[in-house]
Amino acid sequence: MSVREKVGGALIGQFEADALEFAHAAGITISEAFKNGFEVHRKADASYVTSADLRVERQLRQLIQARHPAHGIIGEEFPRHLPEAEFQWILDPIDGTEDFVHRVPTFGSIVALYYRGAPLVSVLDHPLLGLRCHAAFGRGSYTNNTRIELDDCPDEPDERLRVVLSARANFTRYRDEGARFDALARAFPNHRIYRSCYGHSLVASGAVDVMVDFQDTLWDLAAARLLTEEAGGRYHTVADFFVNDTRVYSAVFGRPSAVARLVAVLEAA
Amino acid sequence: MSVREKVGGALIGQFEADALEFAHAAGITISEAFKNGFEVHRKADASYVTSADLRVERQLRQLIQARHPAHGIIGEEFPRHLPEAEFQWILDPIDGTEDFVHRVPTFGSIVALYYRGAPLVSVLDHPLLGLRCHAAFGRGSYTNNTRIELDDCPDEPDERLRVVLSARANFTRYRDEGARFDALARAFPNHRIYRSCYGHSLVASGAVDVMVDFQDTLWDLAAARLLTEEAGGRYHTVADFFVNDTRVYSAVFGRPSAVARLVAVLEAA
Repeated sequence: MSVREKVGGALIGQFEADALEFAHAAGITISEAFKNGFEVHRKADASYVTSADLRVERQLRQLIQARHPAHGIIGEEFPRHLPEAEFQWILDPIDGTEDFVHRVPTFGSIVALYYRGAPLVSVLDHPLLGLRCHAAFGRGSYTNNTRIELDDCPDEPDERLRVVLSARANFTRYRDEGARFDALARAFPNHRIYRSCYGHSLVASGAVDVMVDFQDTLWDLAAARLLTEEAGGRYHTVADFFVNDTRVYSAVFGRPSAVARLVAVLEAA
Repeated sequence: MSVREKVGGALIGQFEADALEFAHAAGITISEAFKNGFEVHRKADASYVTSADLRVERQLRQLIQARHPAHGIIGEEFPRHLPEAEFQWILDPIDGTEDFVHRVPTFGSIVALYYRGAPLVSVLDHPLLGLRCHAAFGRGSYTNNTRIELDDCPDEPDERLRVVLSARANFTRYRDEGARFDALARAFPNHRIYRSCYGHSLVASGAVDVMVDFQDTLWDLAAARLLTEEAGGRYHTVADFFVNDTRVYSAVFGRPSAVARLVAVLEAA
């Protein structure tokens, strides 16, 4: 029996309902801020943070602590809560804050629950698009409550494969892997570039074949593996390293044969 | 007095209202097809066409011919109508058909009216996003009926400039200009990649600073110049050439100083 199976389906189902409730509450707060306005600041690294990011993360933390006082919380905007707990919630209140600031509706919330380092529940919610993807371990992957199965796409040639890449800025953020972006862009020219949450939702819903998400952090990638694997897709970790105290992840995920083809190009670059 | 000024503001205003009415009707048909289903086919070049593309272009042609029987029509899916007419409507019923097929809501309709080769009216409509950009010569540029002025963005360094690129596939479609994609991706790494209509709407609404649309056709780019210029932005034609009987355009448009910076990189590549 795996670690996660010991948690049990009934409890996982309850956590799944909790995560959906928390993401729904966050979505209402985000929609109100989008409509009524918010303050915009830039962090030391020039990335954006808004009063809405802070408000939503505070709200999520309060909801989680009220419901599950023994659970830990890791979020983008505030320090870790109960770092030794077996259950850890991982939160990105608004992924794609730069798009949120510029009123591009593809931003979204990431809410995930891990048990001893393994994902139990994942939610990606795009309140402005009416798009929500969620998965729970052993219970399937859903887009707007429709069960998703990622069938394979072996017949599409490389030039037509529907690929999402991280922006090239990601590929050089901590290590210079720009040449890998260039190789992917050449080999798979039918690509889009989106920020993490929306790209992950497009993979999870089957709208694209595969995504390459490079040099991102724990909360950015918190929901992607479970959503992909519960839909029958493949999640491949390309790299996982520390830069000072920041853990950095790069991954390829989506339809299994598409993942294999992109990984082959990445490894040769 | 320029050619377009001779048409007169009152008549341009009437054409503007007509174009908005036509795009609105198209949007209803598209939304219904998105909800109720449609047939999908691939053209000889492997690009998608759906029963919805054909139905919407037929609908637009009927509306235009009933209202303006002396006007010409150029559309993606059917032959030219009255090619010698002074007024020409240019239509792309669903730009981003591949996204429409895969239920990614960023597709949109492009409706433009030209007089003796100069743009009079432009509409970009994204029915699933509730996003519409329109402009009329001498009458301003609007996003969801809010007047847009594209102020300049001189203080953003290149690495933070908000840039939309065509996919690399566009840069090699008729001529191999892949090296220019690579140079742009390196110099402006905070990029997104979208299809034409949505990228143009993001420029027109001020959500991004600039777009590079490469090796696209008349209908793809039909609305971009007027929307940009009426908002105080700059539209720069990089190339305009024939491949057999297809006229191919490449352009950079958006905030003036951003356009200048991208054009400099393109010209050096």
